[in-house]
Amino acid sequence: MFGLEFEVMLNFEKIKESYDRIKPYINKTPILTSSTISKSVGGEVYFKCENFQKIGAFKARGALNAVFSLDDSVKSVVTHSSGNHAAAIAYACKIKNIKSYIVMPNNTPEIKKEAVKNYGGEIIYCENTMKSRETAANRLITETNGVLIHPFNDYNVMAGQGTIAIEIFEKLKDIDYILTPVSGGGLISGVAVAANYLSAKTKVIGVEPENVNDAYNSLILGSIQPQTQKETIADGLKANLGTLTFPILQKYVDIVCVSEKEIVQSMKIIFERLKIVIEPSSATVVAAVLFKKIDVQNKKVALVLSGGNIDLVNFDWGKLL
Amino acid sequence: MFGLEFEVMLNFEKIKESYDRIKPYINKTPILTSSTISKSVGGEVYFKCENFQKIGAFKARGALNAVFSLDDSVKSVVTHSSGNHAAAIAYACKIKNIKSYIVMPNNTPEIKKEAVKNYGGEIIYCENTMKSRETAANRLITETNGVLIHPFNDYNVMAGQGTIAIEIFEKLKDIDYILTPVSGGGLISGVAVAANYLSAKTKVIGVEPENVNDAYNSLILGSIQPQTQKETIADGLKANLGTLTFPILQKYVDIVCVSEKEIVQSMKIIFERLKIVIEPSSATVVAAVLFKKIDVQNKKVALVLSGGNIDLVNFDWGKLL
Repeated sequence: MFGLEFEVMLNFEKIKESYDRIKPYINKTPILTSSTISKSVGGEVYFKCENFQKIGAFKARGALNAVFSLDDSVKSVVTHSSGNHAAAIAYACKIKNIKSYIVMPNNTPEIKKEAVKNYGGEIIYCENTMKSRETAANRLITETNGVLIHPFNDYNVMAGQGTIAIEIFEKLKDIDYILTPVSGGGLISGVAVAANYLSAKTKVIGVEPENVNDAYNSLILGSIQPQTQKETIADGLKANLGTLTFPILQKYVDIVCVSEKEIVQSMKIIFERLKIVIEPSSATVVAAVLFKKIDVQNKKVALVLSGGNIDLVNFDWGKLL
Repeated sequence: MFGLEFEVMLNFEKIKESYDRIKPYINKTPILTSSTISKSVGGEVYFKCENFQKIGAFKARGALNAVFSLDDSVKSVVTHSSGNHAAAIAYACKIKNIKSYIVMPNNTPEIKKEAVKNYGGEIIYCENTMKSRETAANRLITETNGVLIHPFNDYNVMAGQGTIAIEIFEKLKDIDYILTPVSGGGLISGVAVAANYLSAKTKVIGVEPENVNDAYNSLILGSIQPQTQKETIADGLKANLGTLTFPILQKYVDIVCVSEKEIVQSMKIIFERLKIVIEPSSATVVAAVLFKKIDVQNKKVALVLSGGNIDLVNFDWGKLL
């Protein structure tokens, strides 16, 4: 049933409309190259730098599209997140001039609270359990007559993320692979639907840390599998696939997995070679290429560097490498 | 005497010629902005990103100009450096297809040796003393009939560095201040001479760590002062002013100083806000603005981020902040 539904709800036209809607408020992020990296893998590697996106991550695209698609009668948005989606919702609501209420666990790091506050988001603290988050969010929805915007299981969010593919194909032709990190599947769903429309040749591949490879398992077993509960340095990738994203991944996407060490080593190479700051989640796609999880010899590959929000002070390269 | 000499040896025409010479081999580095940083200081702040330059630092410009200005009979270049100048000379010689011999102390970190080797430079190891370095370099000059290119006390090197100002004024008009880090004075000399020609309004200001403020002392006392021998996290800024750079600084430049903590805090802000990797030397100019060593309220300021080569694994933010 979902399989039929998404082609109506998420198609290239929706993604194109989304792009027209959010364009004034996003950065058209650059596509960088490194001759050293391309040479080392024997292919052409392009880095789509969403770390330079508003709020420091691609999530600005989806949040803007979802918030701007709301009926004008909606005066507030609620979400529970401690990550980039929270800042993205606050940013989008600030631009639309409506309220945003962000439910966060009371042990959320200061830097993530600051990001939300900077965009005028109102933080509501809760215990660090999913139940406490949901209770707080539901209460706010009732009290403020607000609307919940899910971080990925939402077609408007997916359509916003898919605009990345429009910008990639504006600049690059004949791409063999586009790689994106996979968490809940919002980013890769949007990108895959757009890429499928724009270029029959292009295969979209998702990359997951081995430690939290629920999407990999879900595609193999044909049903949404629970998260492994292991830890990963790529803390943005711990979500489970959603009911709406899963069928899109089934139709369009392959998944490969990378180890923790491969992630950190790849992240270091990006810092050193491209001189840009990326978060560990972004490094997964680099690892997939550098550690030959897919063969890119003589291929043209676009890697979506999803974001650059990292807690530098507590990131211990020496210990992680 | 030097005061008269430099106007013949280093003027805008020389810098413009230099630019024509090196242009095909350098990156026209981007100029970035951060609305948060501009807002926080009440002025317009522009970041000229030489961390994205070839070899990861502005030194590529000066080395290319010096190497390309050599007589065609010269078949090898010698230098003693463990820093960005070493990689820059190796890079320039590779392009000119001549040999480069780089004298390095035998305890030089692996990453710096790699940079030189990547560009085909031949490393000659010596003891970690200035005498041992100079002896080794002199022996190589005799043996290989090579030419020594000094990292800053060389008009061709200065002219190459000055091309940064040409690129800044191509993009920006009416700049009140240009800030660059100061070590031996090669970068700021070239930039100051070019800026003085291109814009009467623009004042060029050098920034030094308080711990190694020999240029600051030299300008106050009117003669080249020795280095303080203190340590600084900005390890690229430990050189003394040269006999050729000093009179140029005297004529055009003011110096301000920043503390170690100010350097590291500013570096963190650049990583977090601009999502780019800079080395501590580059952060000095950011610190001068953020910590109000000069008043940039309602002013237009260009900061030269000189490079992005940093030993990430051994950089302990927690300890340094």
